[in-house]
Amino acid sequence: MTDEHFMKMALAEARKAFDAGEVPVGAVVTVGEQVIARGHNMVERLNDATAHAEMIALTSAFERLGAKYLPEATLFVTVEPCLMCTGALYWGKLARVVWGADDEKNGHRRVTGDTWPFHPKTTITRGVLGEEGALLMKEFFRARR
Amino acid sequence: MTDEHFMKMALAEARKAFDAGEVPVGAVVTVGEQVIARGHNMVERLNDATAHAEMIALTSAFERLGAKYLPEATLFVTVEPCLMCTGALYWGKLARVVWGADDEKNGHRRVTGDTWPFHPKTTITRGVLGEEGALLMKEFFRARR
Repeated sequence: MTDEHFMKMALAEARKAFDAGEVPVGAVVTVGEQVIARGHNMVERLNDATAHAEMIALTSAFERLGAKYLPEATLFVTVEPCLMCTGALYWGKLARVVWGADDEKNGHRRVTGDTWPFHPKTTITRGVLGEEGALLMKEFFRARR
Repeated sequence: MTDEHFMKMALAEARKAFDAGEVPVGAVVTVGEQVIARGHNMVERLNDATAHAEMIALTSAFERLGAKYLPEATLFVTVEPCLMCTGALYWGKLARVVWGADDEKNGHRRVTGDTWPFHPKTTITRGVLGEEGALLMKEFFRARR
């Protein structure tokens, strides 16, 4: 399985958010070749500013594995994680984080700059199907202008 | 009501965490003089690395007010918020965040440095009953060494 395979599943999650009137971000968590959790942004539905795709997917993954750390897991997310989600990924000690589109406004790097905010053992991959992830965001915000 | 009054309530939450074998951090959310939510660290109990006192108190506050932003609320927490919780406080747009003890290891400032990570309108107060907050943490980690 390639990163693109799992990112397509994260994009399908983002599309669900889009169709529900939510900022379209989706995430899946994998261990090996298996998807163990997924999530999409539910800030409006849950009336909770912290209900981001990554938080929902992570909490679901902790629940699924009965473990509070995920050192063998990879999280795929369609857009660069924000500061909160990056902090959550730090605590979860994930093996790997893969994101699609960079997010200059709300991505964590605007605040964290050159300081590594993830767990020391976490590796990062950027730009996987990033254009698709970015396009969904653009469509969403254009429709609201 | 003074900041100390509400911080004592946050410390009582931290004590509950301590007694449950959790890293002893507690939080309360207030609007005006009313406490609308409280929480303590439940990482072990929920088996969820994101179940920090602030996250639990914030989600409870969103639920209580039926609102996804808390621009009139103050969050009191016994220890400096980590990166994740700081990001959550950003998204919640709180009026004010008050913390007790600084946390050199896991406090957000180790990563955020000189960049302001909260909402632009959020104001910060540090060091309210900080010695009490720090003492609980020291006791907890000493007992585990």
